[in-house]
Amino acid sequence: MATDGELPKKYRAVVYDEPGKISTKVVELDMPEPGAGEVLINLTHSGVCHSDLGVMTNSWAGLPYPTQPGQVGGHEGVGKIVKMGAGTENSNVKVGDRCGIKWISSICDSCPACLAGHDGICFNGKVSGYYTPGTFQQYVCGPASYVTPIPESLASDAAAPMLCAGVTVYSALRKSGAQAGDWVVLLGAGGGLGHLACQIASRGMGMRVIGIDAGNKKDLATECGAEVFIDHTQGKAEEEVKKATGGLGAQAVLVLTAANGAYASAMGLLKFGGTLVCVGLPEGELKAIATAYPQFLVAKAQRIIGVAVGNRKEAIETLEFAERGLVKTHFTTCKMDELTKTFEEMDRGELKGRVVLDLTA
Amino acid sequence: MATDGELPKKYRAVVYDEPGKISTKVVELDMPEPGAGEVLINLTHSGVCHSDLGVMTNSWAGLPYPTQPGQVGGHEGVGKIVKMGAGTENSNVKVGDRCGIKWISSICDSCPACLAGHDGICFNGKVSGYYTPGTFQQYVCGPASYVTPIPESLASDAAAPMLCAGVTVYSALRKSGAQAGDWVVLLGAGGGLGHLACQIASRGMGMRVIGIDAGNKKDLATECGAEVFIDHTQGKAEEEVKKATGGLGAQAVLVLTAANGAYASAMGLLKFGGTLVCVGLPEGELKAIATAYPQFLVAKAQRIIGVAVGNRKEAIETLEFAERGLVKTHFTTCKMDELTKTFEEMDRGELKGRVVLDLTA
Amino acid sequence: MATDGELPKKYRAVVYDEPGKISTKVVELDMPEPGAGEVLINLTHSGVCHSDLGVMTNSWAGLPYPTQPGQVGGHEGVGKIVKMGAGTENSNVKVGDRCGIKWISSICDSCPACLAGHDGICFNGKVSGYYTPGTFQQYVCGPASYVTPIPESLASDAAAPMLCAGVTVYSALRKSGAQAGDWVVLLGAGGGLGHLACQIASRGMGMRVIGIDAGNKKDLATECGAEVFIDHTQGKAEEEVKKATGGLGAQAVLVLTAANGAYASAMGLLKFGGTLVCVGLPEGELKAIATAYPQFLVAKAQRIIGVAVGNRKEAIETLEFAERGLVKTHFTTCKMDELTKTFEEMDRGELKGRVVLDLTA
Amino acid sequence: MATDGELPKKYRAVVYDEPGKISTKVVELDMPEPGAGEVLINLTHSGVCHSDLGVMTNSWAGLPYPTQPGQVGGHEGVGKIVKMGAGTENSNVKVGDRCGIKWISSICDSCPACLAGHDGICFNGKVSGYYTPGTFQQYVCGPASYVTPIPESLASDAAAPMLCAGVTVYSALRKSGAQAGDWVVLLGAGGGLGHLACQIASRGMGMRVIGIDAGNKKDLATECGAEVFIDHTQGKAEEEVKKATGGLGAQAVLVLTAANGAYASAMGLLKFGGTLVCVGLPEGELKAIATAYPQFLVAKAQRIIGVAVGNRKEAIETLEFAERGLVKTHFTTCKMDELTKTFEEMDRGELKGRVVLDLTA
Repeated sequence: MATDGELPKKYRAVVYDEPGKISTKVVELDMPEPGAGEVLINLTHSGVCHSDLGVMTNSWAGLPYPTQPGQVGGHEGVGKIVKMGAGTENSNVKVGDRCGIKWISSICDSCPACLAGHDGICFNGKVSGYYTPGTFQQYVCGPASYVTPIPESLASDAAAPMLCAGVTVYSALRKSGAQAGDWVVLLGAGGGLGHLACQIASRGMGMRVIGIDAGNKKDLATECGAEVFIDHTQGKAEEEVKKATGGLGAQAVLVLTAANGAYASAMGLLKFGGTLVCVGLPEGELKAIATAYPQFLVAKAQRIIGVAVGNRKEAIETLEFAERGLVKTHFTTCKMDELTKTFEEMDRGELKGRVVLDLTA
Repeated sequence: MATDGELPKKYRAVVYDEPGKISTKVVELDMPEPGAGEVLINLTHSGVCHSDLGVMTNSWAGLPYPTQPGQVGGHEGVGKIVKMGAGTENSNVKVGDRCGIKWISSICDSCPACLAGHDGICFNGKVSGYYTPGTFQQYVCGPASYVTPIPESLASDAAAPMLCAGVTVYSALRKSGAQAGDWVVLLGAGGGLGHLACQIASRGMGMRVIGIDAGNKKDLATECGAEVFIDHTQGKAEEEVKKATGGLGAQAVLVLTAANGAYASAMGLLKFGGTLVCVGLPEGELKAIATAYPQFLVAKAQRIIGVAVGNRKEAIETLEFAERGLVKTHFTTCKMDELTKTFEEMDRGELKGRVVLDLTA
Repeated sequence: MATDGELPKKYRAVVYDEPGKISTKVVELDMPEPGAGEVLINLTHSGVCHSDLGVMTNSWAGLPYPTQPGQVGGHEGVGKIVKMGAGTENSNVKVGDRCGIKWISSICDSCPACLAGHDGICFNGKVSGYYTPGTFQQYVCGPASYVTPIPESLASDAAAPMLCAGVTVYSALRKSGAQAGDWVVLLGAGGGLGHLACQIASRGMGMRVIGIDAGNKKDLATECGAEVFIDHTQGKAEEEVKKATGGLGAQAVLVLTAANGAYASAMGLLKFGGTLVCVGLPEGELKAIATAYPQFLVAKAQRIIGVAVGNRKEAIETLEFAERGLVKTHFTTCKMDELTKTFEEMDRGELKGRVVLDLTA
Repeated sequence: MATDGELPKKYRAVVYDEPGKISTKVVELDMPEPGAGEVLINLTHSGVCHSDLGVMTNSWAGLPYPTQPGQVGGHEGVGKIVKMGAGTENSNVKVGDRCGIKWISSICDSCPACLAGHDGICFNGKVSGYYTPGTFQQYVCGPASYVTPIPESLASDAAAPMLCAGVTVYSALRKSGAQAGDWVVLLGAGGGLGHLACQIASRGMGMRVIGIDAGNKKDLATECGAEVFIDHTQGKAEEEVKKATGGLGAQAVLVLTAANGAYASAMGLLKFGGTLVCVGLPEGELKAIATAYPQFLVAKAQRIIGVAVGNRKEAIETLEFAERGLVKTHFTTCKMDELTKTFEEMDRGELKGRVVLDLTA
């Protein structure tokens, strides 16, 4: 690792050269100076996430303007701090610390959303790899107060994907209100979010997991801690959830897929007083949750909540679970010049598990 | 008041003589003996609620079988205990105590719903005036552990309507998660539930109330504590709520009417992290809350919850607010032989405020 | 099992024949009739607890009057319901159900303490084996709404001790505010309460356990799930807790022994914002927690809380952990005529693990 | 007000010229530049707090080294932002906004304490007027993310004292767990903290206040919202609290004085399940709360908690109560060259109400 004073003038980065298409290019960029309150990080790894594909191809609905050519993507980066900007004297990190960049790369720490702990809603927040140069590069700047320290014994490549999918499902599980010993249903239990949620819920938080997904995901979900697995293609999910839970239904149901159908079926799996947790975002036209009937919500005292990205504290707690080996991602690594190919495979649904970009290669 | 040993053999009650129609009849009934765990109460007053009309006319959707001829209706009764049944030695009430009967007249105290504090979902619960002889009579039996003590300085006629509408809105406000100083929107602020919610929220709980209703309800809502009133017929509710709340929306929105349209508009009035509370039950075909979009719930970290009747503890707390004069019902009284007329007026929407049945007249 | 109608006229019970001394006697008693709201249970097993010894010898400080000769002791009984009393038609249990009696044998369900979920503080509550005939007998009556259903696959002898020690530590862990992933210190980790707390905290609730006890308890605490064990006789507990927890201290410290010294040392083991949970009751003169300094509590935003017996809901949740094999008691069984001997051994501190009385032998 | 570009080179400040003694001096200082992440504020008012006296005279126990000659004191400052430092582009404040400096002038936003919302415990936090130049000066720098916006209709002099005493008692009331309608006892109800707590609890949060203090504070406490006042010099506080609360005691007791005796008496005023909140800091030798008996805490399920300064969010909420006129401070203003005299009066206990330093005079 370069230390301050020996930093190279140039470094390598992967940019979206033709946003709207699946196309990336490795370029050389000038070494940036960390701004006020920022640290400069020498990244070694970055997760490659489906949201990056959406940003690159301008298909992600949440973004207000088209992605610009030359944008460095990525939002799950890990590396070591090599330089501290002005005004970081009293921060909680220092040169040499390993830390990570998340989907939200910075927040203002003072708007009403920040004060309420809703990092993802910060009125002044920035999305990494879209508003700011992202983590598909060897050096990146981030706020000293917002980068996430990486536990010492957790490998950087293993840590990277935890910073996005891992934090999201951990936050969703926390907010679900389910407690140790409670049954939770995970819709999409074998997916990118789901297989992490199975592990964190069962091994980390003491919950009892019912995984629901297509039949070919049974082994993965079960290995990841699902005590019961239900193949939703058999059409008996509600019946089987009731059976597994003594007739009552689950304390929480997390929708971790993007299917409107999953939302429609979810309410029927809930116990009285239970909570439906919305995480997966259906694409296309907005549709209400088809079974969100006031009459039923009232009669059963149920709740529906939405959970976006977790906050800083939840990121640290997620990494602690990972450090202890309670949650792991299945991932393969790719090199910087293989990123276009990786995105093409992702687009065709051919990826198995996550891909982590090796920025040292 | 009759004391034990001097109880009359017969007493007067109002029954539904032709369920399905609006028709009641005053009859004489034999004095009952309180069963195991029960107390016998000499009622002096009972609220007359819209749900009673639904039970009488068989139009209330929640009931599994038709109301039987001879059913004594009513579920907001207040009177004095005159006799204790077997097994009540260690109860918290005694002969001479004034207490009340609620919508749910008894619960089992041991099913999963009871243990979770959801009285209204008790697997073995009974609805007063439908499953059991109700409060439109001079004597009624109820469980010693489930009748609600009435504070000494609160008049019985004033207490009666609190046991249903009052408890319901108090419970909804508590569960909304809004805290003192937070803005809450009450949809239907001038209605039976709404005018109580205005008072409890503002005077009892320190919340800031935005009342929404038709323009002719402005005075009532304002007198009851609404700091801002919005006439929903003007079609600018969302704009005006934003304006009143510094652009952010309200921490909680309670739907206290039965209009599907109110539900559809409610989400737009919420602050990030806010909660839509379903209380009012739309009639007719089930319709999902039209704006319950997973994407919005996620992006704004919002919640939708359903709240039915409050529990025993909430009933006591509601009566304490009433005792302190912080919440009052506008009511008129009627005699037992005027009850049919009262229900007819209720059915035509001609009642102003609540009616309390005077069982001594 | 005897079914209703075939019940014997007489049955066997163990009574304290000379309260004040360690002495029990097996006697024949007349079969009782379940009272209003009660069930009659044919007990097969009862845990034998140190509190029973205290009641028998009149040394337990919490009891207002001397124990009477002929008192049937015991408060951890398990058996099958054989008869239902009047007024139990709508209860959640039925003849043939297996269920348990706890330390608090009945509550009123309506006093302020009950409504707040504090069963152990019920203004009208009864202690089993002192206020009421306890569980050292083949038949006992208990309230249909307060007996605890036993999960089908959990053996009765294994269930019995869970109803007291198990519930107590589970309740204490819940109320500690520690969450999955948090460090908790258990003072007295190898004791009767402690070894159950180790298991429930680590295997049931996902907490990380630091067990503190005398060195000879290391194996037991470690087998029960303590990730770190500290021998308090070495005098370095604070230093070692800090080391294990990254310098911060534990989120919660539970004092599960009766030593004033344990209380005095406990505050120093806590993280900022952490909670000291008082469970064990020092005997003799009342002494304040020696380090309960307002200045420190303020500077570190810490809490001290007291937790007595758990409530009905917590009892059910504890038994669910036991049913899943996550928590087990080490116990041996004894016969009814061996109970005096068992108490003598308990008094001399010679018992290893718990003793369960076999009421069928 | 000076706007950026027209700022004077010099400005006036009050410094401690001989720390250890009560002595201040008005000096001219060079205009500072806001650092990275900071704003420069043109202060018009600063509260004068007892803690400032402690810092000046080196008698405040919490500070690790002697106060330095030339230190600018003060920690309750209000003024307008006149200049933004580097890296504040995305902050939630801008030039022209009125905002305030608090006891804790900056936090790191990333240490474990910050992430848990404990601003006052920040591992890298700074105390205003001790670690940093304080608010007894016309210009001060503070972090853009940590200064507190002042509501438009709240006068600066009225806002200043809210930033310290107001926030502290609001935070304590929140953390007490008492809810609207609950009884809270305020020990020291007529003091600097107490008279604000009376107002916020009763008018802001819907709690019922029992004020306890010396008899000559009765009028003030009553005017501020105490529903019941008890003169503690009469020695019947426990009896009278029980009487006022239906025999049960209060849900929360806040100790807002620095007397060890107040702590000793406080536990006896609590309801079962209630919370003793430590706020006032006794001086001199550390003494445990004399009645913090594990046996009583357990038997009554009570809690003791420590609460220091509130956080950013609580500061904003406190100011909202002040903006609405629900809480007011009785204060007089003094000029910069009168500050020594003010501190002398404070030291002699002669001040009535708070003093606000007018920095424009």
